[in-house]
Amino acid sequence: MNARLDRFTDVDTPALLLDLDQVEHNIDRYQRGAASAGLKLRPHAKAHKCSAVGRIQIERGAVGLCCAKLGEAEAMAAGGVRDLLVTTPVIGVLKIRRLVELAKSARMAVVVDDESNIAALSEAAGAADVQIDVLVEVDVGQARAGVAPGPRAGELASLVARSRRLRFRGLQGYQGKLQAVASLGDRAALVREAMAKLRVSLDGVRAAGLDCPVATGGGTGSFPIDIGLGTLTELQPGSYVTMDTAYAKVALASDGDAHPLGQPLTILASVISRPAAGKAIVDVGWKSASSDGGLPSVKDQSGLIFEFAGDEHGSIRSTAGELNLALGDRIELIPSHCDTTVNLYDRFAVHRSGRLEGFWTIEARGKSQ
Amino acid sequence: MNARLDRFTDVDTPALLLDLDQVEHNIDRYQRGAASAGLKLRPHAKAHKCSAVGRIQIERGAVGLCCAKLGEAEAMAAGGVRDLLVTTPVIGVLKIRRLVELAKSARMAVVVDDESNIAALSEAAGAADVQIDVLVEVDVGQARAGVAPGPRAGELASLVARSRRLRFRGLQGYQGKLQAVASLGDRAALVREAMAKLRVSLDGVRAAGLDCPVATGGGTGSFPIDIGLGTLTELQPGSYVTMDTAYAKVALASDGDAHPLGQPLTILASVISRPAAGKAIVDVGWKSASSDGGLPSVKDQSGLIFEFAGDEHGSIRSTAGELNLALGDRIELIPSHCDTTVNLYDRFAVHRSGRLEGFWTIEARGKSQ
Repeated sequence: MNARLDRFTDVDTPALLLDLDQVEHNIDRYQRGAASAGLKLRPHAKAHKCSAVGRIQIERGAVGLCCAKLGEAEAMAAGGVRDLLVTTPVIGVLKIRRLVELAKSARMAVVVDDESNIAALSEAAGAADVQIDVLVEVDVGQARAGVAPGPRAGELASLVARSRRLRFRGLQGYQGKLQAVASLGDRAALVREAMAKLRVSLDGVRAAGLDCPVATGGGTGSFPIDIGLGTLTELQPGSYVTMDTAYAKVALASDGDAHPLGQPLTILASVISRPAAGKAIVDVGWKSASSDGGLPSVKDQSGLIFEFAGDEHGSIRSTAGELNLALGDRIELIPSHCDTTVNLYDRFAVHRSGRLEGFWTIEARGKSQ
Repeated sequence: MNARLDRFTDVDTPALLLDLDQVEHNIDRYQRGAASAGLKLRPHAKAHKCSAVGRIQIERGAVGLCCAKLGEAEAMAAGGVRDLLVTTPVIGVLKIRRLVELAKSARMAVVVDDESNIAALSEAAGAADVQIDVLVEVDVGQARAGVAPGPRAGELASLVARSRRLRFRGLQGYQGKLQAVASLGDRAALVREAMAKLRVSLDGVRAAGLDCPVATGGGTGSFPIDIGLGTLTELQPGSYVTMDTAYAKVALASDGDAHPLGQPLTILASVISRPAAGKAIVDVGWKSASSDGGLPSVKDQSGLIFEFAGDEHGSIRSTAGELNLALGDRIELIPSHCDTTVNLYDRFAVHRSGRLEGFWTIEARGKSQ
């Protein structure tokens, strides 16, 4: 039995543990990095989905939070965060109604890539007598939402600027696919390529005579490059606060400290069966650890391998001979993908210096609408 | 725009739709199959996690429900289901305390595969003055929890039978790996092999002079074979009620009606960006459709392909030329794996004959403890 885990005997399993010392370390590391480059940090709440974590980010210097969905923004606003950017287009009557409602009590920004959506936002904001900040999303290589680099961003920006109720704020350009490229050099080349695409659109907007104070984007992997590049004015990293095995493989600094972030997020699992000498079954499966990023790893126990064994089961084996795990013993797993794992849990079991501090509600869990 | 989906314009997306006509059809089909073979049906609640669905199963003939975890059982009991089998070992002080609490108001059965667990259950049941039904789990090929086929089940059964507070009820033998074998003939051979292993243990228990009324196991895929085999007395199918694309590929009857079950479960998604002529982006990603079973498929629109494009994005393309989807249009997706997709949602949007009936809470969503 891992002595460190004796401290969590009152926490039932599976549980999502969050080490607050390391959370603060990670928040401060990226906040300092952004500040020293004169950039603003607007961390992405989609990673932690917890307003208590978001409030720490803001207390320590973030200008607000990003949210992937409106439901996430509603949860963060209810938790006291008052400056929010929804990084996905908000489409349709039902959602626009919710957005203008939210804009009555929080400063709301949203991205757009379509004329009809701009018209609908303008009309709804007017009817509700609110103002909404709008950024045009540019596809800088993600091949998802967003307009193509070039004059299109300026055309949409002009349309936004003509609305009395919408305020054009700038452009968003996010390239998710390059975030996990392990080599800092390879990643830097890809980031420069993506940001060159964003600059084409930024130039177009400015050539149209529009004020464009914000260029937002970036993630945990591009962060060390973004802070030196000077294209983005606001950075959106999310995973840096919780981390996972995918990002643990990504070099995040060039100063010799290539892995400057801690790993605060773990899953506490219990052994529920010992069917054979070399195998233990634990109570974590696909319903308590996401698999879209691969397999979770076993923390602090070299040679132990976790494999999924169903919705609610995982299998542990040892590559180093004997398996010293008894029925009821606990182990910690490191999620392969933090965002989708956090989305499976209602709360974090928060600890500091090895002691349980309490449970924090993950208010935006499941808020995909 | 799909005319059928115009009926759900008041339902925000992503939403999990459940067609009640088809749910009832599926429930009745398997209930009749079990009854005509003289077998009991104890459907697995891990698929739907919703007590309202569980109550329909019981109203239509099920003897109770299976639950994968104690938290699922607590949710079903709170929803009025009073006869529950927890199909995973319940290990440790915290969980056993919850089990005996539950046994004060519901008839609780649990599986075991370990002496120390039997002793702990017996002691806790005695202290709380409750009775708990106990089944010994046998590993019939799943290579997960359970004792090896042979005399070991009889030894544990005798230990259970000696406890005043535990009642030995029988054996559980579940082989999950064969459930999705597409060919009925290939699957039948594997089911017979697994059930032969269970019979070895059943014989051992009976040779020890113990009453062993229950042999429980089976799933949606093995069901058509189990009802003809006569080894199991209680069947545990789960997915049959909601279905998914994995089970749609599995032949489920030999009478010419190889696909006798409907597909009641779908995800309602909205188009949120049309970045290119051949591509639409929808608001469903890894956080609203599970990926452990592969890709969801697009319902009723041949040639359309869904691919994951991140936590909250999916990409739709057409293999048949033009893509007739406008911003705000809705499509329905069929989950690849029902259990893990249901576990992402707080409620079903329930409809019947094409009309929305209301929302049913998925009370056991996330109840992995």
